[in-house]
Amino acid sequence: MSRADPGNLREAAEAIATGRISSLEMTTDALDRAKQAQPRLNAFIAIEQDAALEAATAADAARARGLPLGVLHGVPLAHKDMFDRAGRITGCGSKIRADHVAGETSTVMQRLERAGALHIGRLNMSEFAMGPTGHNAHHGRAINPIDSARITAGSSSGSGAAVGGGVVLAALGSDTGGSIRLPAACCGVVGIKPTQGRVSRHGAMPLSFSQDCIGPLARSVEDAYLLLQLISGADGLDPTCCDIPPPAALTPEIGTLRVGIGGGLFSEALSGEVATAMEDMARLLRPACRSVEPVQPPDFSAVAELANVVAMSEAGAVHFDALRSRPEDFGPQVRMRLSQALAIPAPIYLRALQIRVIMLEEMLRTVFSACDLLIVPAMPFLPPLASDVDVGAGAAMNSIVSAITAFTRAFSFLGLPVVTLPVARSREGLPVGLQIVAPPWQEQRAAALALHIEQALALGPFTAGFARSEAA
Amino acid sequence: MSRADPGNLREAAEAIATGRISSLEMTTDALDRAKQAQPRLNAFIAIEQDAALEAATAADAARARGLPLGVLHGVPLAHKDMFDRAGRITGCGSKIRADHVAGETSTVMQRLERAGALHIGRLNMSEFAMGPTGHNAHHGRAINPIDSARITAGSSSGSGAAVGGGVVLAALGSDTGGSIRLPAACCGVVGIKPTQGRVSRHGAMPLSFSQDCIGPLARSVEDAYLLLQLISGADGLDPTCCDIPPPAALTPEIGTLRVGIGGGLFSEALSGEVATAMEDMARLLRPACRSVEPVQPPDFSAVAELANVVAMSEAGAVHFDALRSRPEDFGPQVRMRLSQALAIPAPIYLRALQIRVIMLEEMLRTVFSACDLLIVPAMPFLPPLASDVDVGAGAAMNSIVSAITAFTRAFSFLGLPVVTLPVARSREGLPVGLQIVAPPWQEQRAAALALHIEQALALGPFTAGFARSEAA
Repeated sequence: MSRADPGNLREAAEAIATGRISSLEMTTDALDRAKQAQPRLNAFIAIEQDAALEAATAADAARARGLPLGVLHGVPLAHKDMFDRAGRITGCGSKIRADHVAGETSTVMQRLERAGALHIGRLNMSEFAMGPTGHNAHHGRAINPIDSARITAGSSSGSGAAVGGGVVLAALGSDTGGSIRLPAACCGVVGIKPTQGRVSRHGAMPLSFSQDCIGPLARSVEDAYLLLQLISGADGLDPTCCDIPPPAALTPEIGTLRVGIGGGLFSEALSGEVATAMEDMARLLRPACRSVEPVQPPDFSAVAELANVVAMSEAGAVHFDALRSRPEDFGPQVRMRLSQALAIPAPIYLRALQIRVIMLEEMLRTVFSACDLLIVPAMPFLPPLASDVDVGAGAAMNSIVSAITAFTRAFSFLGLPVVTLPVARSREGLPVGLQIVAPPWQEQRAAALALHIEQALALGPFTAGFARSEAA
Repeated sequence: MSRADPGNLREAAEAIATGRISSLEMTTDALDRAKQAQPRLNAFIAIEQDAALEAATAADAARARGLPLGVLHGVPLAHKDMFDRAGRITGCGSKIRADHVAGETSTVMQRLERAGALHIGRLNMSEFAMGPTGHNAHHGRAINPIDSARITAGSSSGSGAAVGGGVVLAALGSDTGGSIRLPAACCGVVGIKPTQGRVSRHGAMPLSFSQDCIGPLARSVEDAYLLLQLISGADGLDPTCCDIPPPAALTPEIGTLRVGIGGGLFSEALSGEVATAMEDMARLLRPACRSVEPVQPPDFSAVAELANVVAMSEAGAVHFDALRSRPEDFGPQVRMRLSQALAIPAPIYLRALQIRVIMLEEMLRTVFSACDLLIVPAMPFLPPLASDVDVGAGAAMNSIVSAITAFTRAFSFLGLPVVTLPVARSREGLPVGLQIVAPPWQEQRAAALALHIEQALALGPFTAGFARSEAA
């Protein structure tokens, strides 16, 4: 392990704990990488150099005094700009909240701090997490570290860019319709969208409170899973957070699993690379799992509309006051979508919630009786070109934008846990992302399969990443 | 105790248990009263004579065989037409559901059946429990047993008429904005609206699921409280029903209580009789309680609108399909109100829910730190004349209709428990009803004060009741 490449999260923490490298050195390296990458990736909204160096110094001092060290003691991370920390700004990728100083610390930040992790800055995101392309009218879009012409996807755009670009080992994002999974897929990293209710949202920016999930993006399944374990579990400050033990230890045991390969919607209109990756995956898993069979999902044709009704109704309530008092401070696209929310009748919103329950029951009864895990692509195509999805990109723009979330929204709507990981490299070097969907609370099962796939494929990173920063 | 007057619920059950009267005799008496009163009160939508006699015969046979007897073994009751019983009709006071046969039994009916209670018929109600006057376009209104020119109020109109008119000792109703408390107040009986989440709604008709509460109307505090205890408690079939032990045994101990007399809204524009009753009440309680002081409630001026937004949004979702497929089968007023629900924007509905939380916090922080129980009138005036509130009653109709619920809606909106009881008799012999409002889950405390008031006033019944049916 070079000084610049901290390996994985446990190795980084161990290097600090054993004194092979100080937290100050590791944090300085991360800050250097962040600053060097910023013109290229636009991953950060703010790099918090002074605070990070101070925290690193304190972490080294704590170690020197022989204090007990958390599992991430002294390890520098960075997160989507939406998790409150007392006395610090949470900007939510917006102009409206750009100077908002939080009064208290969000539960997820508190748990990572308790584990000893440091914070080198606030990562770019779609304004108020609205929009799947990563477009941001105020801060500009984050740039895909693999191919700068491609989108990172969103809304956790900076998390995808910073982790995929080798600035930090891992970052938290949030996922309401695909916002962790899509940037993970586009930037060639691992993402976990937990079960609805697994991770406390206290102190995190709400978008659509019945669909919002906080989760990690990381360079490996193990790292993403470790972060998930650290942030999971009941929280008295968030009554929607369930009293269910955090996910159990990760093992690569998959011999008893019945794997379903998603048919229907999930097998239609796939690009060649994506279709091939799905076939290769079935072939890879067949010898290792109990069974690998096509599984027909329920009719999800109404899901996009239903999920949107729920998301926009709830977002409309969140931003109701600001929409009246300072509409000009929203980006034009975000303002337009929020304004349309006022045209959604309340009974339609409630009907969508009712249909969700019925759909989840059907999903459990049909899909998850036929298989233990469902595999579907993260997107129907390779990471799109930014020029195809940017504002003013023309008539095809809307259909591409909605196609981006075509495979992710259903699992947000149903609250199911999903592990996303890259499973192939296209001719151009672009990642093909896979979703492993599990029944509620079965993150461990999905991560076990993801770990097996990761080890079997040994794809390696999609960017020079940490190495590149050494050269710089 | 005459054969016709079964006293109270425990006495009635004891009379059956000890063989002083058979369930068949008591049930036959109740059916006779129901049939005799029906032309005068229109309390029943259906009298279920055959089923009731059969059940009574079975109850007597069980006793003869020495089987263990429930606390209401063999006692005839009747309930609002909205609680499912497998294989029987639940009509919900409507045309649309007039022939709807339920597939399973509601939890409240199951619990009363387990206690041994019988069922002599389905009681009148406002169509789908919408509307506070008791008006029903399909079945006609129930008639106030004290003064036939006055309304029973609604929506549990038949429950008020049947209990107040001495047909049954007690009846279940439901309360979404005052629908137990108002009929209790107008018909001179006791009503309990429990804490939101105290009583399972499984198998009960929904109106506004975030405000609907099921509770008893009865001729005494003790009887109402006994029914509440029997129907309370967690239910796996209703996830909104909280896992909190049923209310504890009733005692008349009130010496430590700080009683608040509601000021602001609740002291304005009271009719002379109501204002006098409130003053008399303060005088009555002062020597018995730790303190009796005026208490200023939070600003409730927006509550009627907020509660209506929530109620109509949720009702609109419940009746969405029927509104499209058979609008002509709703009564005109109900159809109009439900149609207007489609004009409520979803973000406004969600904002109302958010404001509810803030208002509840304020209520607990201000009112329920200053006092243990809050006393306010049930209505600002005596039971209104039916001619003043009926459809087509003229311009004043709307303001009277909304004034009827002016003092009850806030506690539905906030989910607080309330015990209503009659506390004075006007010159014309009409009842003045009082609300005793408690913090969440403190039904026992409110009922203790109600019991003290009932015993101290010894008002006696407002109708000849059971005696009248003997004469008939």
